[in-house]
Amino acid sequence: MTPAREKRLAALRRALARRGFDGLLVAGYANRRYLSGFRARDMGLGESAGLLFIPRRGGPFLLTDSRYELAAGEEAPDFEVLIYRSGLLKILRPLLRDLGVRRFAFESAWLSHAAALRLIEGCAAEGVRAEAASGLVERLRRVKDESELAAIRRSVRLNEEVFAAFMERFEPGMTERAAARMIENLMIGMGAECPSFPTIVAAGENGAKPHAEPSERRIERGEPVVIDMGLVLGGYCSDMTRTVVLGRVNPEMREHIRLVRRAQKAAIAAVCAGVEACAVDRAARRIIRDAGHGDHFGHATGHGVGLDVHEAPSLNSRSHLRLRRNMVVTVEPGVYIPGRAGVRLENMVVVTEKGCEVLNRDTTFLDL
Amino acid sequence: MTPAREKRLAALRRALARRGFDGLLVAGYANRRYLSGFRARDMGLGESAGLLFIPRRGGPFLLTDSRYELAAGEEAPDFEVLIYRSGLLKILRPLLRDLGVRRFAFESAWLSHAAALRLIEGCAAEGVRAEAASGLVERLRRVKDESELAAIRRSVRLNEEVFAAFMERFEPGMTERAAARMIENLMIGMGAECPSFPTIVAAGENGAKPHAEPSERRIERGEPVVIDMGLVLGGYCSDMTRTVVLGRVNPEMREHIRLVRRAQKAAIAAVCAGVEACAVDRAARRIIRDAGHGDHFGHATGHGVGLDVHEAPSLNSRSHLRLRRNMVVTVEPGVYIPGRAGVRLENMVVVTEKGCEVLNRDTTFLDL
Repeated sequence: MTPAREKRLAALRRALARRGFDGLLVAGYANRRYLSGFRARDMGLGESAGLLFIPRRGGPFLLTDSRYELAAGEEAPDFEVLIYRSGLLKILRPLLRDLGVRRFAFESAWLSHAAALRLIEGCAAEGVRAEAASGLVERLRRVKDESELAAIRRSVRLNEEVFAAFMERFEPGMTERAAARMIENLMIGMGAECPSFPTIVAAGENGAKPHAEPSERRIERGEPVVIDMGLVLGGYCSDMTRTVVLGRVNPEMREHIRLVRRAQKAAIAAVCAGVEACAVDRAARRIIRDAGHGDHFGHATGHGVGLDVHEAPSLNSRSHLRLRRNMVVTVEPGVYIPGRAGVRLENMVVVTEKGCEVLNRDTTFLDL
Repeated sequence: MTPAREKRLAALRRALARRGFDGLLVAGYANRRYLSGFRARDMGLGESAGLLFIPRRGGPFLLTDSRYELAAGEEAPDFEVLIYRSGLLKILRPLLRDLGVRRFAFESAWLSHAAALRLIEGCAAEGVRAEAASGLVERLRRVKDESELAAIRRSVRLNEEVFAAFMERFEPGMTERAAARMIENLMIGMGAECPSFPTIVAAGENGAKPHAEPSERRIERGEPVVIDMGLVLGGYCSDMTRTVVLGRVNPEMREHIRLVRRAQKAAIAAVCAGVEACAVDRAARRIIRDAGHGDHFGHATGHGVGLDVHEAPSLNSRSHLRLRRNMVVTVEPGVYIPGRAGVRLENMVVVTEKGCEVLNRDTTFLDL
């Protein structure tokens, strides 16, 4: 087992011991990968690629179905792979019995309510208590270790190289969809595993939808284009947004870009180990509100990035979680004017003792 | 409201009335799209693009966050769009109060256990009962209406055109990843919304993993390659698998392909309105077992296809559900020999009163 993985399992087992659990059933993709190395993704909530069972002592186990048998053995060599053919419970119950488990936790956030009820009832029939727990592994994942930081840096670097390669090819008349597709092709061609989320290219009025789907709309000279893109490399995600213009930027858009950049800089300046997440959000939001655009910035200022492109901590107005050294978060304020246009600027930063380190080097249309 | 959508809502409301529910909270992507037209996809279980509330009378409502406000208004014009800014409950509770809802159902299969508990508790505090329900909308979706069948036919047709275009370009020396990427590019280039699942291209021993991820392995002349591909067009999915060989097929592989094809034909012959799903699975499995490969066919023989690429009904060995006219299912037996190779052949069929109609026309390497 790699030292990093050994450390993670040990930390998790300590957390289980503190709570009196004999084990944890891990259901979320990223938690599974973090602990075991098993890379398979779930096909939606309805179709799990497998679960881990981490007993306080012994194991650990990877429970999956026959489709993943070979991959599981290759990718998670430290786990004993158990194949279920007709339902998880048929294989989990004898395992719990063999291990002498009386009370275990399951990941309440990553099992459907229906599946959780089946689990709870199926275990109760054997005198075993399955109890909902949340965030046991996510809490470990919030603070990145050195191998994770290195992977994230590589992911951010490659994402910027892809963006630069795209900008060389970007021309008026391209549709949003063609542009998004070109970006994703460059990602794969340049070595990424996959995009970390569906690439957003949103021109003009479409930019006012923070999660716009690229359309057949052609991109014209002079209009702002929101490009939100990220990739997965070595399992780790990157996430970056730029708002660019082909040709001249009109004065109104220039003001909006400058405003959002001011908000972003203020938020970045607010990031520091020990600071509450909401203080970072407040720093960005105040500037946008003071400029009269309070109603045009609906989403949170940022989110954690790692194995998941959106993970803890969230930099929203309600979170009193204190940032810690080696957390990795995005800082991405925006201004969205319905029917007109949108601007969003997003960088990733690593929290340090004295502030933060901005991982992005790209400055395209950032400081006008 | 389109007549098809009106019919769906009416059928759902009858089901709610029969069960004494004052409404249904719809959480699943495909159920949401089926009822409302809202196209946004969720980013995993942790991040919903929104929910519908379908009261017995009045509404219906689409609850989402500000990122989707504009898209929701455009795509679901028959729904009243309500935006939640700080949690679903803040907007749901006053709505339930206004509507006089005392007891409603939520989709237990499409809410995480953690989210469901928050919902149940948050509503109980107002004297409202939120109860788990499953399959209310999925049951309606199992049988396709004419507009859906037309969309599925178009999706299957385009998928086969993409496959043919790929086969013209497919050459020895290509990596699995490059081949999968080429297929997905052709999909988009030829007009698909997106792939309906990550394309599988698995050569030689990789073919023995039914859900193999395309690797950097080069594909050589003479080895079997499992290609499992599908796309989304007009919201509806296609799903097809072929096992192809560049150059000459060796006698052993030829036997495996013939065996799987015999199993597929037997299963297709077994499909008919009124027949139990397990009978179709049994027809395929018996042939593979009799040939001594019972242990090499672990997955179900087929699954429904529609707005989701995997939906009800499942054609597995345990399902006694009776097939009905205008259900659309895949028939996809396989043989997987660890460390050696795999074969899977998959077509889609529409169940009819007298049997079924095979939607695929492609015959590449099907009848050797």
